[in-house]
Amino acid sequence: MNKLTLLVHCKDQPNIIASVTNFIVQQKGNIVYLDQHVEREQNIFFMRVETEFEGAKFSVQGFENAFHNEIASKFKMNWKSYTNEKKQKMALLISKYDHCLYDLLGRYNSDELDIEIPLIISNHKDLEPIGKTFGIPFYHIPVTKSTKSEAEDKQLELLKAHQIDFIVLARYMQIVSKRLIDEFPDRIINIHHSFLPAFAGAKPYHSAFKRGVKIIGATSHYVTEELDAGPIIAQDVAHITHAYSISDLIAKGRDLEKIVLSNAVKLHAKHKVMVYNNKTVIFS
Amino acid sequence: MNKLTLLVHCKDQPNIIASVTNFIVQQKGNIVYLDQHVEREQNIFFMRVETEFEGAKFSVQGFENAFHNEIASKFKMNWKSYTNEKKQKMALLISKYDHCLYDLLGRYNSDELDIEIPLIISNHKDLEPIGKTFGIPFYHIPVTKSTKSEAEDKQLELLKAHQIDFIVLARYMQIVSKRLIDEFPDRIINIHHSFLPAFAGAKPYHSAFKRGVKIIGATSHYVTEELDAGPIIAQDVAHITHAYSISDLIAKGRDLEKIVLSNAVKLHAKHKVMVYNNKTVIFS
Amino acid sequence: MNKLTLLVHCKDQPNIIASVTNFIVQQKGNIVYLDQHVEREQNIFFMRVETEFEGAKFSVQGFENAFHNEIASKFKMNWKSYTNEKKQKMALLISKYDHCLYDLLGRYNSDELDIEIPLIISNHKDLEPIGKTFGIPFYHIPVTKSTKSEAEDKQLELLKAHQIDFIVLARYMQIVSKRLIDEFPDRIINIHHSFLPAFAGAKPYHSAFKRGVKIIGATSHYVTEELDAGPIIAQDVAHITHAYSISDLIAKGRDLEKIVLSNAVKLHAKHKVMVYNNKTVIFS
Amino acid sequence: MNKLTLLVHCKDQPNIIASVTNFIVQQKGNIVYLDQHVEREQNIFFMRVETEFEGAKFSVQGFENAFHNEIASKFKMNWKSYTNEKKQKMALLISKYDHCLYDLLGRYNSDELDIEIPLIISNHKDLEPIGKTFGIPFYHIPVTKSTKSEAEDKQLELLKAHQIDFIVLARYMQIVSKRLIDEFPDRIINIHHSFLPAFAGAKPYHSAFKRGVKIIGATSHYVTEELDAGPIIAQDVAHITHAYSISDLIAKGRDLEKIVLSNAVKLHAKHKVMVYNNKTVIFS
Repeated sequence: MNKLTLLVHCKDQPNIIASVTNFIVQQKGNIVYLDQHVEREQNIFFMRVETEFEGAKFSVQGFENAFHNEIASKFKMNWKSYTNEKKQKMALLISKYDHCLYDLLGRYNSDELDIEIPLIISNHKDLEPIGKTFGIPFYHIPVTKSTKSEAEDKQLELLKAHQIDFIVLARYMQIVSKRLIDEFPDRIINIHHSFLPAFAGAKPYHSAFKRGVKIIGATSHYVTEELDAGPIIAQDVAHITHAYSISDLIAKGRDLEKIVLSNAVKLHAKHKVMVYNNKTVIFS
Repeated sequence: MNKLTLLVHCKDQPNIIASVTNFIVQQKGNIVYLDQHVEREQNIFFMRVETEFEGAKFSVQGFENAFHNEIASKFKMNWKSYTNEKKQKMALLISKYDHCLYDLLGRYNSDELDIEIPLIISNHKDLEPIGKTFGIPFYHIPVTKSTKSEAEDKQLELLKAHQIDFIVLARYMQIVSKRLIDEFPDRIINIHHSFLPAFAGAKPYHSAFKRGVKIIGATSHYVTEELDAGPIIAQDVAHITHAYSISDLIAKGRDLEKIVLSNAVKLHAKHKVMVYNNKTVIFS
Repeated sequence: MNKLTLLVHCKDQPNIIASVTNFIVQQKGNIVYLDQHVEREQNIFFMRVETEFEGAKFSVQGFENAFHNEIASKFKMNWKSYTNEKKQKMALLISKYDHCLYDLLGRYNSDELDIEIPLIISNHKDLEPIGKTFGIPFYHIPVTKSTKSEAEDKQLELLKAHQIDFIVLARYMQIVSKRLIDEFPDRIINIHHSFLPAFAGAKPYHSAFKRGVKIIGATSHYVTEELDAGPIIAQDVAHITHAYSISDLIAKGRDLEKIVLSNAVKLHAKHKVMVYNNKTVIFS
Repeated sequence: MNKLTLLVHCKDQPNIIASVTNFIVQQKGNIVYLDQHVEREQNIFFMRVETEFEGAKFSVQGFENAFHNEIASKFKMNWKSYTNEKKQKMALLISKYDHCLYDLLGRYNSDELDIEIPLIISNHKDLEPIGKTFGIPFYHIPVTKSTKSEAEDKQLELLKAHQIDFIVLARYMQIVSKRLIDEFPDRIINIHHSFLPAFAGAKPYHSAFKRGVKIIGATSHYVTEELDAGPIIAQDVAHITHAYSISDLIAKGRDLEKIVLSNAVKLHAKHKVMVYNNKTVIFS
């Protein structure tokens, strides 16, 4: 069975849904899921459609060409399509913290994530054994002020060599440069350890402690040039009390971070996220 | 502008979405929202579509007839349509607790609920002043073992006289009989003060205390003949500790009850709930 | 039965708990509750003790003098004591929103709050009927740029005339001036409609919409001179999606605001909050 | 520094706190934490005290004897004391699911749990490599109907040989027999994949799906003879929708299970749990 997922956005206008669904029927496809959203402030239409096509005659290329000519050009759509022919390839960038790494690899191992992880890149050697445990190649690329650009060359080379689709920063403790972001726009997922936009930047748990908040949070977002300001994919929070020390906050926060990051990765991997205007539409 | 909301369920089969959306386009309608769900265990398709039709020529009756003939019969659909011509009429059944009543009437007063409340019926006189405050006719119909059937006669008479669409039991402390349920199938909304199916029946906070749970909850559901076993519309919970006495649980629970019940009422009033197989599909 | 609640903070040092509990025993008191906290960053000790004293011979004044002489001076304590002799008097300052007002007055009416509410002050006339409904004097004091100082004179006069203990800003849409804050330090409770420190200032739901967050929140805090920067008493959040319009956020937020504010009021009224270093210790 | 934690419960009566704190002062100890609770329904007093004793002269045995003679017998206390001299030893019983195992071992590895894990026992061989990865001896003891008693002999032998203090069933798929429970009363921690008391027994996610609940949960509790009916240590829930299939529930549930179980293990390991009357008091 050929499965094809279609993500579309364009200016809202009449008859989009009927036109698209009709087109799919004409192409002998079956719609197994359709979700749609209209952002009323800016009048933008978003849609995600999962379709199935039977038979050997189906050609992804043919479908895409026809969709472009008959539908997408007419409605001036931005669109992407994904098939089940190959799995997304995800690279992990890490430093010294292991909780997000364990959480992601545990899920990977038990087939909860429908992706491939061809490599782990770290600026420290500490977590190399974990890579070994899970049978994933681990590349140690140290980063210092003077070697940052050179290190990025190596990172990019590896990412390209492994045909990486998206990157997950699993508590990677370096700021990612414009060069990498431009290569992977809306395809680098970070976990920040606060409920953004509160406590952006360094040491959010220290800031949360100082401000005396009664909830802490974690936010997974796409990386953009402005630090911790990219489109938010997932957030969660936990209630705390005055009795929590900074290290208690850090420990509690780890539970949030790993779950929130893994949820964001799952959403991205299943093509359920669309980015528009520095915000996300998350399809169900 | 004529607005029409369509709720549909039927056996899942190819081309439903395309057929329905096409039909709406042919009827000169515009689709402003579409959400759909397939229950894979039983292979049932559910859909909710919001449409707009311009112009004086549009006839609801005409649309419904055409939809029946051209679409619904073909796919053997169960379906309902709702227009913006008239507001739903909701009756409140209450006893002595006022928190759900205040919450619903506060929202009603500030136009958060797009409904009419023609009457309040209570088996006690205590809350009559609240009815007066909000300008809603209050009917006191006492219920005793021997007068129960007679009391229901009066209730039904009032409900019919006011052309009530659905009933909300806002902590009404009487069991509703089969007769009333049959008149209002999937249209009587109750709030039960536990996270069902735990602690069905009387005194759930006492049972929660005894069992030593660390969370309490509230559940809003449609009333069916089996007590506290109807289709669940909304649930929420709150964390508690060993330090909560039974009266602390009751106080905390009130906050859950009123919010959960009001959320369920909003979902029902906006035609976002479909019932199937004693479960609900809640459209976004 | 005389009940006396003691709130204490001082530099952490050995034997505080034993000294205080011993002292209470010597005064023929019984300890019914004790909770304590040490803030390790600054080495501050906090304690809340509920005691009961039987018999006509007990004198609050006598107890307080003895506690001052034998315990508080020795440990250089900041302390306060509260008895069950008289209820706290709370003033409500409101503008046009009614949801927090209804929620607080509903609880007040059903004796959930162990306080008195001698008056409501509003800069608008809109909600006067609600005051009447609940039998609470309503004072309309308009506030304009040019009359602000004069309006505050009237407010202060009323607050003093009614011997107000603390003030609740139930969505009061004016900035409270230093003069009022100085008269009621750590005794003016505000509700801000965001999870502070995110989205301080005006129109937080608009900012939340723009930023594309996946959770919204509400924060109750003591008012200090810096806007929305006072000690946080209570916070809660709700998950949202891209499908929420600004008005959906506002509606959802109302549910958070009223529950969070009422919880903060309950904590304050029961003397469960201590303020230190612009943060709160919330006793259980 | 000698640290000693004292857990006490007894009939509520005057002067307990003062007597205990005084006693500790007389023994030259410093109280670094005290939390207390009175269960008013049955009038039981609970207390947890953390103390520090300086100097080589301090003797745990001496302290305990004195406490028994001077305090505990007078108030007829049930009490236990724990020192920082040695870490608690925890055994893991597992079957085929790895998510709780990874979560616990990840925390163990990063020193979040202040315990030792001398062994893993499993009735299946599947997860043996994980034991190896974390350097923890793995014992495969198959369990069949006919060999159950014999298997328990081996389990008990191993548990005793390793001087195990408490057992964690990390999704162990066998019912633990009375014999094991009697050896480890209130010291076997299970994770059940529902918000108990709802959906006790087998296949709770299937039951949750069937009932159409809008929240699912996980519960960690001490094992008693009655299945899933022991004292609850920790619970958490997640909101779900009609769109969740059974396998979605299972996946979402895994996140709850691992966090809830690890939280319960942390509470137990830090001696923050007291059991009374099939309920727990959880100290802060």
